[in-house]
Amino acid sequence: MTEMHARRRARLRSEMAGHQVDALIVTDPLDVRYLTGFTGSNAALALPAGDGPAAEEAAVLATDGRYTAQVAAQAPDLRALIERASAAAALGALPERARVGFDAESWTVAAHTRLAAKAGERTLVPLTAPVADLRAVKDDTEVDLIARACAIADQALAELLEAGGLRPGRTEREVARDLEWRMLGAGADAVGFETIVAAGAHSAIPHHRPTDAVLEAGDLVKIDFGARLAGYHSDMTRTLVLGEPADWQRELYDLVAAAQQAGVDAVRAGADASAVDAAARAVIDRAGAGELFTHAVGHGIGLAVHEAPAVSGRATGTLPSGAAITVEPGVYHPGRGGVRIEDTVIVRADGAQILTGTRKDLVIV
Amino acid sequence: MTEMHARRRARLRSEMAGHQVDALIVTDPLDVRYLTGFTGSNAALALPAGDGPAAEEAAVLATDGRYTAQVAAQAPDLRALIERASAAAALGALPERARVGFDAESWTVAAHTRLAAKAGERTLVPLTAPVADLRAVKDDTEVDLIARACAIADQALAELLEAGGLRPGRTEREVARDLEWRMLGAGADAVGFETIVAAGAHSAIPHHRPTDAVLEAGDLVKIDFGARLAGYHSDMTRTLVLGEPADWQRELYDLVAAAQQAGVDAVRAGADASAVDAAARAVIDRAGAGELFTHAVGHGIGLAVHEAPAVSGRATGTLPSGAAITVEPGVYHPGRGGVRIEDTVIVRADGAQILTGTRKDLVIV
Repeated sequence: MTEMHARRRARLRSEMAGHQVDALIVTDPLDVRYLTGFTGSNAALALPAGDGPAAEEAAVLATDGRYTAQVAAQAPDLRALIERASAAAALGALPERARVGFDAESWTVAAHTRLAAKAGERTLVPLTAPVADLRAVKDDTEVDLIARACAIADQALAELLEAGGLRPGRTEREVARDLEWRMLGAGADAVGFETIVAAGAHSAIPHHRPTDAVLEAGDLVKIDFGARLAGYHSDMTRTLVLGEPADWQRELYDLVAAAQQAGVDAVRAGADASAVDAAARAVIDRAGAGELFTHAVGHGIGLAVHEAPAVSGRATGTLPSGAAITVEPGVYHPGRGGVRIEDTVIVRADGAQILTGTRKDLVIV
Repeated sequence: MTEMHARRRARLRSEMAGHQVDALIVTDPLDVRYLTGFTGSNAALALPAGDGPAAEEAAVLATDGRYTAQVAAQAPDLRALIERASAAAALGALPERARVGFDAESWTVAAHTRLAAKAGERTLVPLTAPVADLRAVKDDTEVDLIARACAIADQALAELLEAGGLRPGRTEREVARDLEWRMLGAGADAVGFETIVAAGAHSAIPHHRPTDAVLEAGDLVKIDFGARLAGYHSDMTRTLVLGEPADWQRELYDLVAAAQQAGVDAVRAGADASAVDAAARAVIDRAGAGELFTHAVGHGIGLAVHEAPAVSGRATGTLPSGAAITVEPGVYHPGRGGVRIEDTVIVRADGAQILTGTRKDLVIV
């Protein structure tokens, strides 16, 4: 594990020349975890530029006294500093007069003000999420963890359906809790994010939170959920129907399924990052429902539920090989009902490697 | 509900003169939830100063298209703006030339840069967590929710012990998952934070994450966990022993129990915010173990697991009546074992109102 983290740090160090900085201070907990293996909630990594052992040996990982034993166990290859003000300690470990890059997307205005006061002759240089592009491209270990998190979610939903857990008379909250229990039972470290169970008219609310509303025969039920395993997340949405679907429900489902397939088909390493959204949206636009698809087609996923790369109509650049993204168009008729279908996929040279395994035809419960 | 939120906004508006601003932009999702009831992940509240209906009517809540229906349902009394760039939209709704306060502890450097570019003639004024002191003081509705979250955690631990779920041969992860299942079953909306189950030598790691390590007879087992209910959190730690305790384990337990009681006894509205830490630490210092109590005695708790007021040895000011805090001293012998005991309590004029109900003597499993 330490070798894997050292390789990631080496890649980041090699990029610093392009940022015109002599060192980076990394304080986002997920960035620190990615680069060191350390999972404490208070951490700052000082990473000088350059290659070779000397640069690696000059790296410092600062945290507080709650984590003395943990940092030694998780990051034995890094020099640890135990200081409550971890970012200031990491900054102080860098040479005077250094140009020190920081993540302007994660440092608060107040943190920057405090650290600037302690920087001495060092210059703080704002960078835009300098670790995000590295984290966006998953290695085999990471893909395996995301795939296993997806399999846990598949299993939990299958067990819920087998056990008759999705039925008229239960509340949205009961179904959500049942699904979460089953993810934990299937081996998840935790629920990845707040489970959405949205029945009937609620299914038209894209990010509905489960309520005590009771599921009724004829309802569309939209379920958006995921598992976390060793820090990595899965994300899947399925929309089912309780009993025979009405014509409008079947038509809506078929439209979203076609859009979702078009989105998946547009996934390919080197494709424009906006192409997936455009492909799914074109299908929905052609059906005259473009205004009812009110969110981006997806997002990158990994240690965070939402991370790089961006996968919206406004996204720039191209999709890198190895990125993990979701493809999740939805069409929502306010007050009536909505459908969303979502997979988690890996971007490959020859297309999308789909990690979520649950069937995507309209399931009638 | 809307009246309760309107009262909170009125209190905040009345404080703005002291901050010398004409309006606030609030973007922290928990602050927005506290002030409006809206729970979407993207939200910005523009709140002009002053009292009376005119000031309230000038308030604007901006969010994106995913939340159009939700914002209307949750905050029907506020004018909603649907704009993906919610903070910029909220800012644009305020008068030209206004002095606009923002939370320097939550805005990132990058967000500030983007918004400053769109501020026109308005001045952005950095404030330090302007909603934190309001949120620190809980009203009866909030106390009730925290108390119910505490009761759920009590019930889950009692059921775990009754079912024989804490026993040699199980792993830390199995115990943690079992406890989390039981919290969901007992009515929690979600697990409040990552459950700590730390057995044997791991109990000496204050923030240990559960591993596949197997519980053994004679182990101290430290369990730190909490439930979330309607957004509010509980937080409780108990340390148990598997089989007859060794003398050092019993002595260690008695020391921490005495320190925890001293901390609880020091809780009182108007007491110095540092007094709780000092009282608990004095007990541990007298036993010569001061260096083994490596963290603050507690923290405020509510919509966030950690929030105002600060309750450490460095905390300034006094404890306000109605604050919700934890009292959780611990003593950790590296490589050997540790004990922490934690309650969630409400600060009252006549002392601590303890919400966590699980017994605090040494439980032998």
